[in-house]
Amino acid sequence: MKVFMIGEAANYKDKLAAFLTTPCDIVPLPREAAHSPNFDSAIGPDDVVISLRFSRKDMTVPNFRLLHVPGAGLDGIDMASLPAGCHVCNVFEHEIPIAEFVLAAMLNWEIRLDALRASFATDTWSDTYRARVPHGEVHGKTLGLIGFGRIGRTIAQRARAFGMRILAVDQFAGNADGLADAVLPPDRLPEALTQADFLVIACPLTEQTQGLIGAAELAAMKPTGVLVNVSRAPIVDEAALYDALSRQAIGGAVLDVWYGYPAGAEDRVRPSRFRFEDLPNAVCTPHSSAWTTQLPERRYAFIARNIDRLAAGEPLLNVVRTPSPEPRPGLQEMSLP
Amino acid sequence: MKVFMIGEAANYKDKLAAFLTTPCDIVPLPREAAHSPNFDSAIGPDDVVISLRFSRKDMTVPNFRLLHVPGAGLDGIDMASLPAGCHVCNVFEHEIPIAEFVLAAMLNWEIRLDALRASFATDTWSDTYRARVPHGEVHGKTLGLIGFGRIGRTIAQRARAFGMRILAVDQFAGNADGLADAVLPPDRLPEALTQADFLVIACPLTEQTQGLIGAAELAAMKPTGVLVNVSRAPIVDEAALYDALSRQAIGGAVLDVWYGYPAGAEDRVRPSRFRFEDLPNAVCTPHSSAWTTQLPERRYAFIARNIDRLAAGEPLLNVVRTPSPEPRPGLQEMSLP
Repeated sequence: MKVFMIGEAANYKDKLAAFLTTPCDIVPLPREAAHSPNFDSAIGPDDVVISLRFSRKDMTVPNFRLLHVPGAGLDGIDMASLPAGCHVCNVFEHEIPIAEFVLAAMLNWEIRLDALRASFATDTWSDTYRARVPHGEVHGKTLGLIGFGRIGRTIAQRARAFGMRILAVDQFAGNADGLADAVLPPDRLPEALTQADFLVIACPLTEQTQGLIGAAELAAMKPTGVLVNVSRAPIVDEAALYDALSRQAIGGAVLDVWYGYPAGAEDRVRPSRFRFEDLPNAVCTPHSSAWTTQLPERRYAFIARNIDRLAAGEPLLNVVRTPSPEPRPGLQEMSLP
Repeated sequence: MKVFMIGEAANYKDKLAAFLTTPCDIVPLPREAAHSPNFDSAIGPDDVVISLRFSRKDMTVPNFRLLHVPGAGLDGIDMASLPAGCHVCNVFEHEIPIAEFVLAAMLNWEIRLDALRASFATDTWSDTYRARVPHGEVHGKTLGLIGFGRIGRTIAQRARAFGMRILAVDQFAGNADGLADAVLPPDRLPEALTQADFLVIACPLTEQTQGLIGAAELAAMKPTGVLVNVSRAPIVDEAALYDALSRQAIGGAVLDVWYGYPAGAEDRVRPSRFRFEDLPNAVCTPHSSAWTTQLPERRYAFIARNIDRLAAGEPLLNVVRTPSPEPRPGLQEMSLP
């Protein structure tokens, strides 16, 4: 069995090799192999391809057994370009670092650890100690979660342990599984907006969620409410958010996702039409919430386990498309990072 | 019934009044009323005193029903100075902000939110995005808790939700209550030292714990291990800690408690013989972990409830000394903040 790792996936060749128990030839392929047939002659019907992107529009499709996407998002995969006998699997694991980032952001908002640290100096200690200003707590605060999928639930699980009240909004409301005080349908979004001390965007970007949080929704928030976006920037209206923050109509925002991203190595774009980082009530970070050293470890450990299962004839995990002439629609999960 | 609030307790006169349902005269008294009989003539046998400090050494003792300490620590109370018929009660609630501080400290150690924020700028966005360096996670890390009382357990409850492994060390080992992977007796401290990614001091300062973490214990820690002290500084040997941090023999430290505190409004002391804040791997904060706006709210709500219970003849909560000619020894709880 050969395992072809295309583009940035090839950077994790040694990691995959360390986790695999099945003897495999691991073959790195350049980025263009995702869209070009130039490397297809090496790929055989028993083989595995690992890639974030794959298309063969109007081309002959190579035959192989498994396309493993090394992330959650399927937006780079053209399902119609895949051979009929091919499984497609994806991986998650980013819900863990994203939830840690969100909790860190909320705790920091209340505690201001960096300001406390900056206030500490041997020479001024006695005065600083006597003049300490109390900070806040997340305990008892209300967390509004827009989206109660894998990421929302992982945030909720941690926030509950802090004694936060959790109002989730999700079209697939269903069961709170003991993780939220209520899971509201989208038409009850206003309740979450008006009650949330922290409003966390944890839903995918879709036609329905683009611009979901606009001027009216920001105006409905508490004047102390803090918006945290770790999903996709366009879910929040760019100009309305800048306006609400600059007028201090809301307490603030923690923004890890942006309106513009560079397309390639030379591309230079702006993250937004507005300089959010100049606003004192905006904490701006460079799309880092899921970007941990542990994320690829867990993901390639998972992929290796799935390849071992394929070799052993066992059922695969995280199957998003089974081999069939009529592929199932892909899951609507976010592609973070 | 009169309620006398002595010294800094008197600052919370209005808060107490707002929570009380029993009609009471609330009487603020100056700081010296804790140790001087000059105000005792006003205090009657049905009354309540709220004070962090109380002594009447070699003096006549006024008669009153309840001394309510507005904190956990009883080190300011001379039990022998109290009338025989007097209850003593204390309050906690600081375990909540201390646990939030500890979790914020650990998450920040891994995520470095302030560095991420500092790296974000519109003009350099494309390069910053492409050059993002992965950060760490607390998930799967080992938390060593020195002390598994009220504070340790409150930390553990939150840390577990993040998927941390928890090794507690406590002389009253007892039951982990599902909050720790193991509760070890003190002679097994080395196991916690060698395995902990974060070592959190959450035990009281006693003769047994003074200097508990010295040069040998710091040397036993992982080279990446991070010490977090939110209890009392002298539990950790000052010179040994400075030495370990400056040689980078451990990963770092988050220090919220200090070796010197000003005794009064004019006193000027150093927090330590060493300038810990000059070490890049030391996060120094000015004894702030429990210092929140919510802490006195919860504490005075509790005290008001206890005064209401006293007035109604119901059993009091958090009784640390019942009226008896032979007072019980006080609980060994920390007096934080």
